[in-house]
Amino acid sequence: MTSGRKWTDGVEGVLLDITGVLYESGESEAIQGSIDAVKRLKDAGLPVRFCTNETTCTRQVLVDKLKRLGFTDMKPEEVFPPIPAMCQVLKERGLRPHLLIHPSALADFGDVATDNPNCVVVGDAIDEFSYANLNKTFQTLISLDKPILFSLGKGRYYKDGGNLVLDVGSFSRALEYACDVEAEIVGKPSAIFFNTAVKNMGLSADKVVMVGDDIVSDVGGALESGMRGVLVRTGKYRSKDENHPTVKPSAIVKNLAEAVDILIKSRKPWDGLAELA
Amino acid sequence: MTSGRKWTDGVEGVLLDITGVLYESGESEAIQGSIDAVKRLKDAGLPVRFCTNETTCTRQVLVDKLKRLGFTDMKPEEVFPPIPAMCQVLKERGLRPHLLIHPSALADFGDVATDNPNCVVVGDAIDEFSYANLNKTFQTLISLDKPILFSLGKGRYYKDGGNLVLDVGSFSRALEYACDVEAEIVGKPSAIFFNTAVKNMGLSADKVVMVGDDIVSDVGGALESGMRGVLVRTGKYRSKDENHPTVKPSAIVKNLAEAVDILIKSRKPWDGLAELA
Repeated sequence: MTSGRKWTDGVEGVLLDITGVLYESGESEAIQGSIDAVKRLKDAGLPVRFCTNETTCTRQVLVDKLKRLGFTDMKPEEVFPPIPAMCQVLKERGLRPHLLIHPSALADFGDVATDNPNCVVVGDAIDEFSYANLNKTFQTLISLDKPILFSLGKGRYYKDGGNLVLDVGSFSRALEYACDVEAEIVGKPSAIFFNTAVKNMGLSADKVVMVGDDIVSDVGGALESGMRGVLVRTGKYRSKDENHPTVKPSAIVKNLAEAVDILIKSRKPWDGLAELA
Repeated sequence: MTSGRKWTDGVEGVLLDITGVLYESGESEAIQGSIDAVKRLKDAGLPVRFCTNETTCTRQVLVDKLKRLGFTDMKPEEVFPPIPAMCQVLKERGLRPHLLIHPSALADFGDVATDNPNCVVVGDAIDEFSYANLNKTFQTLISLDKPILFSLGKGRYYKDGGNLVLDVGSFSRALEYACDVEAEIVGKPSAIFFNTAVKNMGLSADKVVMVGDDIVSDVGGALESGMRGVLVRTGKYRSKDENHPTVKPSAIVKNLAEAVDILIKSRKPWDGLAELA
């Protein structure tokens, strides 16, 4: 942020993380005020998109879950998980993946050809991260003349039912080391990934704010992509995030509701007219 | 190597890698000439020690296998695998490990206390590298105030029954990333590990040559430790190893037999008299 400029100045669109911003991982209720906050953004004529690294279910299943939690007018086309973006990359580059992903997410790969693979895609495969499956994936990767590895996000770990468990980034790191390659990240914090959602709103990154609970993946990724990045004190937020050595959020707020309060109050009477017209 | 100096000059002891130098991985016969080569070194009064990163069986099982292959006078105290060195480190530092190792190697941890662990030790656990075991190991490590991770070697992969499989280094890399720690390596190419074997011969590193098939772990590690490092063209050797960007072997030879030929022929009549006396 340029000094003297408010983080809300000129914001014309909003990207929201899902887990830790709309609801807490493993909880069956929305975070207080978040359902209303999303509604107020839309009522104010601000386009909203949801950027998530969720790869353990299809987009439709995720949307249905959000609807059950109270986000009743959530539409699949507003939600940006890594797999649809990954499919787009595979098609553009004519790649046929070996998939190490969770079976529940397979349907979103649709008609992508996986025979005679010439790249590897790793998502959060959960208990499909077996020794046998990891070796099979490694063998495919190392056998390629030019190994290409895609990682759907680069999370280290996350909380699942009260326990911390290894996330996709840790398993990708093993494959990177084994094959001496660097994974291409599809998902947050990749700028290419964020920009898909930004472009979908018809905006440029400098007009958009990303709100998330992950100081590196959400806030750091947003800032690197040219957006503002606001950190919420919900979800995986920890107080030490406020003194992160490299990532300095545009703002730190209690929760999504507070971020939206500030943003709405800062708006000029004519903001959003174009969208409403 | 100082230019003009031969790699054999002043050598008073020899360290040998096992797999790929004495026998080929997965093969049931010794590499041609290697049984005789070991015998000739000993007959010449040169002390010999065997440095291996093998952690999938006990030292005794490994020695028994070598005897069956024809290395009939092999003694357990001549063989230096990582686990005995690891046990020494654990005792010296008062550490109680959570072990992620193969059950076949457990016996070599003997009376090491593993209750209420304050560090993690990872060996080549083979199919014990399950999602559940990796998560349990990760949870132990991340719960420590000061996470300490030991990796028994840092190999990327190896050949097992004709297939390449992930080695301990790749799994350690996943845990390093997840917990933002750097593993301490116990095994090759660690200088501390090599020096245990060097000291056991009553020598200093500059009097010792290491012969191995791994350009990085054997040869690079030996050079870093102050020894000479000779690369054999057996085992996992590949021609591109001869142009390694950073590791320049003291010599490259056909196999162990050739290395021993050159070394024995270079000896002065009085070399080895101290050992024979």
